[in-house]
Amino acid sequence: MTALDTVLAYHHAWTGHDFDLAMRYLADDIVCEAPAGRIEGAAAFRDFMEPFSKTVTSSTLLSAFGDETTALLMYDTVTIPVPHAPGAELHTVENGRITHLRIIFDRLPFTQARNS
Amino acid sequence: MTALDTVLAYHHAWTGHDFDLAMRYLADDIVCEAPAGRIEGAAAFRDFMEPFSKTVTSSTLLSAFGDETTALLMYDTVTIPVPHAPGAELHTVENGRITHLRIIFDRLPFTQARNS
Repeated sequence: MTALDTVLAYHHAWTGHDFDLAMRYLADDIVCEAPAGRIEGAAAFRDFMEPFSKTVTSSTLLSAFGDETTALLMYDTVTIPVPHAPGAELHTVENGRITHLRIIFDRLPFTQARNS
Repeated sequence: MTALDTVLAYHHAWTGHDFDLAMRYLADDIVCEAPAGRIEGAAAFRDFMEPFSKTVTSSTLLSAFGDETTALLMYDTVTIPVPHAPGAELHTVENGRITHLRIIFDRLPFTQARNS
C-alpha cells in the first residue's frame, strides 16, 4: 500500500463510521496537530476525532494526492451541528500506519453552533 | 507551466507581499470558496486576500501536489494577529490562470484576536 492508500483507507473508515477499522491505520504514537493544539497517541486522537465523526452525515472527498511517505487530502462534510464543514489533512505514513497528521478546519461555526 | 507551477507562482507572490504579481495568476472570473462564503471575481478576491497577506510575517509551504488541472497546498503562516495560522487551498487552473480556489483555515483565532 502507498501512503495515499493507507490514508484513503483511514478516511473511508472514519467517514463510514467504523472507527475501530480507522484505528488500524493509526500508529500508537501518532501525533496530530489540530487547530486547538497537539494531540499525542492513538487513544487521545480517537477521543478527538471519533465524536466528530459521529456527527458527520455525509462527506465528499474533494482532492487527494500522495508520495512515498505523505498524503494530502481535502474533503467536505455535512455534520449535524454545521451543514458545511470542510477539512484538509496532511499525513505522514510509516510502515502502513499514520504517524503524523496535521488537520485544518474552521472551528468558528462549531463554536457558534454550541453558543446558539 | 503545470497547474502546480501556476499555483506555486501565485503562492510565492502573495506570501512575498507582491499582490500585483499574484493577480497575474488569477482569472478575472475566479470563484473562491472561503470559510465565510463565496467570493466572485478577481477584484473581490483581492479585497479578501490582500489584507490578510499584509499581516503575514513568515510562511512555510508544508505540502504541494498537482495534476493537469488542479493543485492542492498546505502551508503555515505567522501573522500579526495570530501567531500560527495554517491554511489549505485547492485550486483549479485553466490556461495558466486560477479559476477556482477553495481555501480552508480556522477563523476562530482571528475572531478571538479581534475581540480581545
